[in-house]
Amino acid sequence: MKKLFLILVFIPIFGISQDGDSLMVRKIYDEILTKGECYENLRSLCKDVGARLSGSPEAAKAVGWGEALLNSYEFDKVWLQEVMVPQWKRGKKESCILIGQDDVPLNVCALGGSVNTNGTISAKVVMVNSFEELDSLGEAAINGNIVFFNTPMDQKQIRTFNAYGGCYPFRSKGPSKAAKYGALATVLRSLSTLTDHSPHTGVMRYEAGIPQIPAAAIGTADADILENAMLDKLDITLQLTMHCQTLPDVKSYNVIGEITGNEHPDNYVIVGGHLDSWDIGEGAHDDGAGIVHSIEALRTLKAIGYKPKNTLRVVLFMNEENGAKGAQKYAEEAKSKNEKHIAAIESDRGGFTPRGFSISGTEKQFKQLEEWENILMHYDLEYIVKGFAGVDIAPLKNGETALIGFAPDSQRYFDLHHSENDVFEMVHERELKLGAASIAALIYLIDKYGI
Amino acid sequence: MKKLFLILVFIPIFGISQDGDSLMVRKIYDEILTKGECYENLRSLCKDVGARLSGSPEAAKAVGWGEALLNSYEFDKVWLQEVMVPQWKRGKKESCILIGQDDVPLNVCALGGSVNTNGTISAKVVMVNSFEELDSLGEAAINGNIVFFNTPMDQKQIRTFNAYGGCYPFRSKGPSKAAKYGALATVLRSLSTLTDHSPHTGVMRYEAGIPQIPAAAIGTADADILENAMLDKLDITLQLTMHCQTLPDVKSYNVIGEITGNEHPDNYVIVGGHLDSWDIGEGAHDDGAGIVHSIEALRTLKAIGYKPKNTLRVVLFMNEENGAKGAQKYAEEAKSKNEKHIAAIESDRGGFTPRGFSISGTEKQFKQLEEWENILMHYDLEYIVKGFAGVDIAPLKNGETALIGFAPDSQRYFDLHHSENDVFEMVHERELKLGAASIAALIYLIDKYGI
Repeated sequence: MKKLFLILVFIPIFGISQDGDSLMVRKIYDEILTKGECYENLRSLCKDVGARLSGSPEAAKAVGWGEALLNSYEFDKVWLQEVMVPQWKRGKKESCILIGQDDVPLNVCALGGSVNTNGTISAKVVMVNSFEELDSLGEAAINGNIVFFNTPMDQKQIRTFNAYGGCYPFRSKGPSKAAKYGALATVLRSLSTLTDHSPHTGVMRYEAGIPQIPAAAIGTADADILENAMLDKLDITLQLTMHCQTLPDVKSYNVIGEITGNEHPDNYVIVGGHLDSWDIGEGAHDDGAGIVHSIEALRTLKAIGYKPKNTLRVVLFMNEENGAKGAQKYAEEAKSKNEKHIAAIESDRGGFTPRGFSISGTEKQFKQLEEWENILMHYDLEYIVKGFAGVDIAPLKNGETALIGFAPDSQRYFDLHHSENDVFEMVHERELKLGAASIAALIYLIDKYGI
Repeated sequence: MKKLFLILVFIPIFGISQDGDSLMVRKIYDEILTKGECYENLRSLCKDVGARLSGSPEAAKAVGWGEALLNSYEFDKVWLQEVMVPQWKRGKKESCILIGQDDVPLNVCALGGSVNTNGTISAKVVMVNSFEELDSLGEAAINGNIVFFNTPMDQKQIRTFNAYGGCYPFRSKGPSKAAKYGALATVLRSLSTLTDHSPHTGVMRYEAGIPQIPAAAIGTADADILENAMLDKLDITLQLTMHCQTLPDVKSYNVIGEITGNEHPDNYVIVGGHLDSWDIGEGAHDDGAGIVHSIEALRTLKAIGYKPKNTLRVVLFMNEENGAKGAQKYAEEAKSKNEKHIAAIESDRGGFTPRGFSISGTEKQFKQLEEWENILMHYDLEYIVKGFAGVDIAPLKNGETALIGFAPDSQRYFDLHHSENDVFEMVHERELKLGAASIAALIYLIDKYGI
């Protein structure tokens, strides 16, 4: 590739007229691409704070980090919104050993919310690939054993979130479904697009009235080892040890900042991500990226001197990963104060190269978003679809507020999601900055024209 | 991010009718995403062959590698097309020392095609940021000195190829422009989107009748060091040593394979990339990706049992990087044999996540490509633009053949382009496979409907 520019460089960047909106959006991108602070902010969140599971000292530190950062940007108002959150602790590193001629340790982690093994559970493994298979095996095969949910993410899906959706129930509901048949524990093939030895955690939920059994995930390469061992030999025993526990709920906070609107200070356009993360890795893409995207969007609009009509608010939600208590609290308070939310934007799909937005709202709101494509397409934001927008803004759904999710490219997200590999080094500076600029541009358009 | 799927998973993947084309395109993607061989082929090209500059023993090895691979897929015809190519050798590692109280070694590499320093050149440095600045300084300031072209790639550009285009003239033409004013050598801030210590090479060309002076590139972080030193102190001396030389042209080959058409065997749809690479790194994205994309496209169409109407041809072009002799040879022979080329597709912008295609052709051809967007958009190929298609297919331009360039996301490409970092490990398996599938799908549509 050497001569491409000969043509490209002579194509003007804008095919549309250089009107005020185009110039303003260009100004937003220029500010972020040349003076953006989101990448260094993310480095700080990942390295100075690190992993920050709800209720942990690190999550408390993240609250202080967020409040200080918002204050440093001198937004018109910065405050903490109190919320009670669950407190789950992993405890000592888990172990999972495949017992055989040579014992093989498998890389394992407890799923969030799981009970511990109360010592070590040693039992035979029953491998299943679907809930139908689990049901057909029934109590006769499962009682007293460990169930291994071995369904890989479907590589045929173009958008990896669809593949994640296909396997998610094994993580969230698998343990209780197996417990109904007398399983002692469950082990899950990690929800990952890669084959490697990193287990991916994530939330699971016990069904009421069913015995609560320990639930763990093993790396996809470890799942291959276990699967192969089971294909070789009928009776395979696993030895599982987990020390996790759930402690009483503790006080935590959403962190909120705002730039007061000039014309309609009681109307709000909000943008946010979640401040909590899982306790392994650094929560860089999930959702450090969304946090710094959101803060950068408001910083930028202020930095370029934009005076919003409506109040622009950034919300760093607490506890998306295992409860969404921050999201519920924010929506409750917004409702009780009768705050009119024009739109809520969420970034919680990583800091990868931007593709567009998904919108959950009225047909009219979708059409309005589509109309802006003549501006957004010049920034490679061509993916405008109806769809889910985000967990933290979902409770704001009321038939009026447009809920919009920022949609970056999804190919690399589930390589590292909820694993030790979700670290700052996996985030690309320009991709992250382009994400922040995409969101800031959208906030500008919504603030100016409504949606 | 945990509940997104709750909605997404219930949205059908296709909004359009499940007609034959959609099913065929789906089959292409399924084949590559589950049984694709391009990633392992790229590993082999990068690790078993490695860097492969035209005229080198490694390039000869790459020709054998390509021929053997095409033969292994049992295409209807596989052959080598002889072509004479330039032979430039870097020789011993270059050195560039910033002379001062403490001598500071800067990371440097010769630009492709440069003469050597015939020993060591030690001279004062004149820093310029534009050709205008060079001209205004003129002979008085430049004669007997080393010119430092210090213009960074413009981070404000959304698509990095535009930023590359802006700096490319400093690499290709800078040496002769400086030599006109009596410069002894030139040193270039590497054309890179990152700040690091890896120099990026690339081709330069001497203007006839102007003294040929040595031309090198230094890492962008090294350029910062040099720039800062010059801001501190007026007189900065560099000591530059380069051992490169140009030897007589040697014989090499384009490697070609084809699947004969059922209805119009004398009509061709071709796809290709370039087999040569620079001599540092492994030429993984540039252009190993294009090579394995192209081969995989034909392998896949054969594997799923597709019988093309027209002859489908894969061309592994030799010598794109410093001469494009393979491209010229292929076009000459196609013309002399009166081969009707319906379309030529090139992949030479890396193996990153697919965005779409650029087309250089008639308005009608552009409209046809746009019409297919109702299928391609389901595979996130929404970027369909008029523009340059590729260096290796450019000589086929004749007003009839549609020239189409595969356009992956550009954000990461110039981080590693022409540097030691362009290695296999920087290629993402799913992204690479999606690229191959995008190209195979387009070949299918063009073969079936024409363009």
